[in-house]
Amino acid sequence: MKAADVVRGVWEAMEARDWARARSLLSDDLVTDWPQTRERIRGGDNFIALNSAYPGDWHITVEETLGDGDRAAVRATIVNGAETFHASGFYEVRDGRIVRAVELFADPGTPPYDRSRWAERY
Amino acid sequence: MKAADVVRGVWEAMEARDWARARSLLSDDLVTDWPQTRERIRGGDNFIALNSAYPGDWHITVEETLGDGDRAAVRATIVNGAETFHASGFYEVRDGRIVRAVELFADPGTPPYDRSRWAERY
Repeated sequence: MKAADVVRGVWEAMEARDWARARSLLSDDLVTDWPQTRERIRGGDNFIALNSAYPGDWHITVEETLGDGDRAAVRATIVNGAETFHASGFYEVRDGRIVRAVELFADPGTPPYDRSRWAERY
Repeated sequence: MKAADVVRGVWEAMEARDWARARSLLSDDLVTDWPQTRERIRGGDNFIALNSAYPGDWHITVEETLGDGDRAAVRATIVNGAETFHASGFYEVRDGRIVRAVELFADPGTPPYDRSRWAERY
């Protein structure tokens, strides 16, 4: 199983609330960093526990994945009620399981200053 | 030049304020989306104009790049005075130039609820 398929599998299993499937694609000693909040989640079990307890009726759309040897990246959209997060993740995979993850969650907003000379809104 | 090297080249050229170098790695008809603000930047020239005018004494560290055929992804940290952004970008490259980009900028913050049972702070 290619690294990008492992990563896609985890995100799609989370969307399906198939926690056993998601867990099967994570190493026991997975280390996940969320640098925005400087949180580190140690272990596949804690990753599943935290994500399965995440509040709200959230839904994931995997926008794209890339694989490069034993590494992979994902871009996904997460809609949680009225909130939307633009997520990205960067991973290392070994023996079909993720061993290292860095995940980012970008919030929507308005342009912080006027740059309409160069950028249109869509 | 591999897709990941093109992408790294653009980010490193921006850090060096070598705008001619950065521009040489962008297609004339590059389309860049910033989905958080729903901004679309059409053209390599507008990409350079917007980024070169971005306020502040910002500095980029490229944390990692991945390449997958004609696609690439980057994770970077941008420090702009007291602000830090955790950036990610997903790209398509053709003939050594980026033709399509989606870029995300994640802000630091505090955990939105107590999840310290599963995640340590670092």
